Amino acid sequence: MQFELTTDYLNKLQDAIASKNQLFIKEQLSELYAPDIAIIINQLNVEEASYLYELINDELAADVLLELDDDKREQLLSTFSSKEIAEQIDNMESDDAADVIAELPENIQEEVLAHIEDIEQASDIAELINYEEGTAGSLMAKELVSVYAFETVSHCIEEIRKQTDSVDVLYTIYVVDNNDRLIGELSLKKLIISHPLARVEEIYEPNIQSVKTSATSEEVADFMRKYDLVVLPVVDQLNRLVGRITIDDVVDVIKETADENLQRMSGISDDVDTNDKLWVLSKARIPWLLVGMCGGIIGSRIIGTYEEQLKIHPEMAFFIPLIGAMGGNVGVQSSAIIVQGLANNTLLGDKIGPKLLKELGVGLVNGIICSVLIWAYASVIEDWKLAATVSVALLTVIIFASFLGTFVPLTMNKFKINPALATGPFVTTLNDIIGMTIYFLVGRLLYGVFL
Amino acid sequence: MQFELTTDYLNKLQDAIASKNQLFIKEQLSELYAPDIAIIINQLNVEEASYLYELINDELAADVLLELDDDKREQLLSTFSSKEIAEQIDNMESDDAADVIAELPENIQEEVLAHIEDIEQASDIAELINYEEGTAGSLMAKELVSVYAFETVSHCIEEIRKQTDSVDVLYTIYVVDNNDRLIGELSLKKLIISHPLARVEEIYEPNIQSVKTSATSEEVADFMRKYDLVVLPVVDQLNRLVGRITIDDVVDVIKETADENLQRMSGISDDVDTNDKLWVLSKARIPWLLVGMCGGIIGSRIIGTYEEQLKIHPEMAFFIPLIGAMGGNVGVQSSAIIVQGLANNTLLGDKIGPKLLKELGVGLVNGIICSVLIWAYASVIEDWKLAATVSVALLTVIIFASFLGTFVPLTMNKFKINPALATGPFVTTLNDIIGMTIYFLVGRLLYGVFL
Repeated sequence: MQFELTTDYLNKLQDAIASKNQLFIKEQLSELYAPDIAIIINQLNVEEASYLYELINDELAADVLLELDDDKREQLLSTFSSKEIAEQIDNMESDDAADVIAELPENIQEEVLAHIEDIEQASDIAELINYEEGTAGSLMAKELVSVYAFETVSHCIEEIRKQTDSVDVLYTIYVVDNNDRLIGELSLKKLIISHPLARVEEIYEPNIQSVKTSATSEEVADFMRKYDLVVLPVVDQLNRLVGRITIDDVVDVIKETADENLQRMSGISDDVDTNDKLWVLSKARIPWLLVGMCGGIIGSRIIGTYEEQLKIHPEMAFFIPLIGAMGGNVGVQSSAIIVQGLANNTLLGDKIGPKLLKELGVGLVNGIICSVLIWAYASVIEDWKLAATVSVALLTVIIFASFLGTFVPLTMNKFKINPALATGPFVTTLNDIIGMTIYFLVGRLLYGVFL
Repeated sequence: MQFELTTDYLNKLQDAIASKNQLFIKEQLSELYAPDIAIIINQLNVEEASYLYELINDELAADVLLELDDDKREQLLSTFSSKEIAEQIDNMESDDAADVIAELPENIQEEVLAHIEDIEQASDIAELINYEEGTAGSLMAKELVSVYAFETVSHCIEEIRKQTDSVDVLYTIYVVDNNDRLIGELSLKKLIISHPLARVEEIYEPNIQSVKTSATSEEVADFMRKYDLVVLPVVDQLNRLVGRITIDDVVDVIKETADENLQRMSGISDDVDTNDKLWVLSKARIPWLLVGMCGGIIGSRIIGTYEEQLKIHPEMAFFIPLIGAMGGNVGVQSSAIIVQGLANNTLLGDKIGPKLLKELGVGLVNGIICSVLIWAYASVIEDWKLAATVSVALLTVIIFASFLGTFVPLTMNKFKINPALATGPFVTTLNDIIGMTIYFLVGRLLYGVFL
């Protein structure tokens, strides 16, 4: 169903590029969609990429450019003149065009804008690149169809014929008042089936949801997902219609946010993928490893204070990995559920208490199961004192880890810190330290009392 | 911008329900959209829920039902007669209706279908519930507009007027041949701006992407996301048009898949959220804790074989948590990147070698950084033999963990096992065990040679 790039196929194309076999390349390209071609170009070096790009037919070229990885697009565009870039951008929707231009060096931005033939497109782009990244303003496109409330259906259809020149897909028709303020919408369906002389104000739907340009991408994504919207109008502070966001742009935001959460929880601090350079991957991963090292060093200091006890009871060391691992596991489980609940707005945001109680309940149940099992095992294999120490410590650690795994992300969220970022690394390290403390405290207590 | 349910607001509503204050409740409900009302009902008990549900106006009621949590919907529907359920379902799109009916007990399914007044809707639903869950067939809706290629534009508009009765939003018009096989599409825009006497075959777009009913939800989601599609037609084995999937349904699949991946990687085996019952949460989390316990027990056996050495060198125990934690961290980082690469199709699927090499490179770089740092620390605080042991072991463990974190998910994926499921728990536990083995082996070797 879907194109999959294999190394064989890539090699064949690279050979064809090397031998300048245009016929073969064009034949291959004609069977592919823009995102597929972009996947291929992402794997090529600059010379190969720009040779191949020249052979893509004009309709697809702009789409291919959009689908490329950021750094590959940057490389490719650096081989273009400002005029050539402008030609490609003329074929894009305003939001995509603004994204591409925003990535260029500032002096080149102006040159490219000056070369765009469609003056309206140029002014739309100039407006859009001013919005801060990650806001509704930066996500929206200018291409939309709007009509005044006082117009007739037939006049509307005439107007739409004019406006549709610049619009690719027609989702809905926005209705504005005399001051360009958004007051409702008119479905295309309604328009088609209404009498030509009916007025828009008689047939439009006044209940319309919109966002301000300053809303964040995540807010927009949550909003559209929650209310099942395919397109969402964007208004300025005076409620004037300035653009629209479509769900396909938001799908990428949703995917990227989810990917980012998973990376943060895994202790990766930048957005990276397997195709990034070695040092980029390395740099994104070292911070959390250093945090983990500090945790390990603190752990070593805690165990160090029990050195004498360890000489007498070296068997205490046997279960250090178990206590550490279980604390980490329970903490990650708890925080994953909370992070997800926060991201999906399924938590009642204002009360932490009930969540903590429930989580402690889960910790208690699972803690009892685990500690009974480990007691049964250790009392058979090792001696009963060690068994008692391990099982009491395990129960305490699991309950503690449940508490921290819930409390930390909820608190982080209150202070507007991304709970996913803080949770994975922070909770795991903290639980490791606390686990060691509890284990050896319990050990000293039990051995001390019973010996 | 978005409604957020607070405990205060919920209490007020519950009081109003208890005192049967219909006026207040209706006033509150009139300001809310369906998903918001569903969030409220999810927090109510059955009696409160069904009282509130009765007060929702008819247009919204079906939408509210759809947005409820599965178990809350089941509870609520169990208080309805088959006829009442049928009335609600009559107001839904066919895909949503089929989802709701599929959840009912089988004997009630038939009763409800028999009560649906619109015979076409009933037969559409009966068809849809036969498709396996998680396939394109189960995602698709029957509401679509299609025209024959030989028809004229004006005849099409007439046809659309008829067909739009059952269609909520008109995305595109599908074009089929005399045998109902999908051959292309016609944008509404094109239809509006074309001459009334033009024939569809002269103006339609023959290049159309479609999926078979048997494609999986994830395939559909990847496909629509990759190709930026808002709606995707579904065809049967003979390429006959049988339904369409819209992006808003797929947005939920994307979100759910991402959530599921994060849960699997966090060692949670079922789809749960904070609102689930305590024992459900507990059950979803215990399997991975038991796996972790087994890992911990194996770890204890490994350390156990070095008991005599520990008596002489109890300081070896100090760095057990550090070695375990770092192995786990590196493994999770590596596997998170691979799991995401697999999910996003950014890996070249056919060659494992280059990925392993790169990952080993990252492991080597980060391993050297960490082991130099820990060497510097330990040689100052502890003695040089311990410092040498810890730093050599740490380097080895990090490289090993990088290898496993890459290799395990790639291999799982080859065998069609969800790499996210296997990765978090499996890799962490495995790394813990291997970490202990390496640490004590290195320790015995260094202490043995140098003492």
